[in-house]
Amino acid sequence: MITSTANARVRSIRALKRRRERDERGLAYVEGIRSVLGAIESEADIALIVVAPDLLTSDRAREAVATAEATGIERLEVSRQVFESLSSRDGPQGIAAVIRQRWRKLKSVELEDGDRWVVLTAIQDPGNLGTILRTADAAGATGVILLEAGADPWDRTAMRASTGAVFTQQLARADWPTFIAWARAAGATVVGAADDADTSYRGADYGSHTLLLMGSEREGLNEAQRAFCDQLVAIPMQGSVDSLNLGVATSLVLYEVMHQREAQSATTPAASATP
Amino acid sequence: MITSTANARVRSIRALKRRRERDERGLAYVEGIRSVLGAIESEADIALIVVAPDLLTSDRAREAVATAEATGIERLEVSRQVFESLSSRDGPQGIAAVIRQRWRKLKSVELEDGDRWVVLTAIQDPGNLGTILRTADAAGATGVILLEAGADPWDRTAMRASTGAVFTQQLARADWPTFIAWARAAGATVVGAADDADTSYRGADYGSHTLLLMGSEREGLNEAQRAFCDQLVAIPMQGSVDSLNLGVATSLVLYEVMHQREAQSATTPAASATP
Repeated sequence: MITSTANARVRSIRALKRRRERDERGLAYVEGIRSVLGAIESEADIALIVVAPDLLTSDRAREAVATAEATGIERLEVSRQVFESLSSRDGPQGIAAVIRQRWRKLKSVELEDGDRWVVLTAIQDPGNLGTILRTADAAGATGVILLEAGADPWDRTAMRASTGAVFTQQLARADWPTFIAWARAAGATVVGAADDADTSYRGADYGSHTLLLMGSEREGLNEAQRAFCDQLVAIPMQGSVDSLNLGVATSLVLYEVMHQREAQSATTPAASATP
Repeated sequence: MITSTANARVRSIRALKRRRERDERGLAYVEGIRSVLGAIESEADIALIVVAPDLLTSDRAREAVATAEATGIERLEVSRQVFESLSSRDGPQGIAAVIRQRWRKLKSVELEDGDRWVVLTAIQDPGNLGTILRTADAAGATGVILLEAGADPWDRTAMRASTGAVFTQQLARADWPTFIAWARAAGATVVGAADDADTSYRGADYGSHTLLLMGSEREGLNEAQRAFCDQLVAIPMQGSVDSLNLGVATSLVLYEVMHQREAQSATTPAASATP
């Protein structure tokens, strides 16, 4: 058992609190019973399980450790004090994992009928990013593409807000030129959200496979991004606030796409029955 | 100009960081150019403007102070150091306000056709509460009723997330027995959100005036709350996460109610034209 917070391995794990370390090493740190079990269930690429036996007070926690061990993943045992030095939450539960980040290469992503991806440009808030991953999972999206610099999905706040969807949604990142070349080749319908669009998100045509382009919290979509969209949609607002939270706006459009797809697949058999 | 952070008035304002102080004194503290201007525009009940001339570096900031002064509200001038001791954000802009909390008495609230209120039971997260206020404003809701102990809408995080809607949405709070007596007398349709409901939120009948009952982040609605609802609605989920963020879930249902009301008012003239 490692009892020193200055231990080299411990320091190397603690460094994952910093984005640059996570980016360079392609790793992330998740903690808590639920998060670690979620990662195992979603077949996340787990490099290491970190366990503090002193902190495993519940049966649930001990079962989680047993589940993790059954996977054959290396286990690092640490003291309570060491675990707390790695932790960023109150009441640490004594179980955590180092995860290898999983990114799709955009070039290798092929779109199929019904697919929808969320495309986020320079999203700032990790909580919003996590919430969007969570809703994307629930609304049947395939994944999230991150354009330009922005929040890190492997940030702890983002991972926590995603409630496990960071492991189930596909993730890709790209710069703008790479993205537009890929999107054109893929033949996707690119739909952007813009307050001043004439078309309501409820009446829009999202095509058979959709890229939903959302601007950053502060700036929205820029001119080049707007110009690239096949369709701009607005979410109507009746009150005095001038915009919606980015996670809320993305969720409203994602659910609209989901409901339209459902309505289409419900009518398709009937339509084909009348030649 | 007050230059001592130990000044009694300064201490009394700083104490508003604590919920108990805010509750007992019925006050709140908002800071930043945009927030203070929003409060003035929404005719919030402002007790005091706090200004740090040293920090007013932009024309926008100085204009905001002039706007505030034009209202005739008392102004407290403080040094940069004092302002920073009151502030809870990076880069304080040198303008803030002490606001008198505004609460409706539930007894005095009468529901009219088309009205919808959000009813939150023991909501925990101030950011979620602020996001819900923001969407409620945008989706044409009348206000938010807070049941049981929960997050404070006058918390700084909640106010910031509301982007001013804390001043435009009506707010009420009640315990459960008071609420159910009032809701029954008001003849409202009470619609609760529950993952296991048979009816989709898209197909539900929200009646002519609606109380949308949302459970807490962790627990959802309890048995008594579910039993009180005229209708339970579910938001379908296609992925692996087992719930949506509370702000997202509330927003999806609020927008559905808004769209249904719009569709109804669009068809009403046609219906009345055919006697």
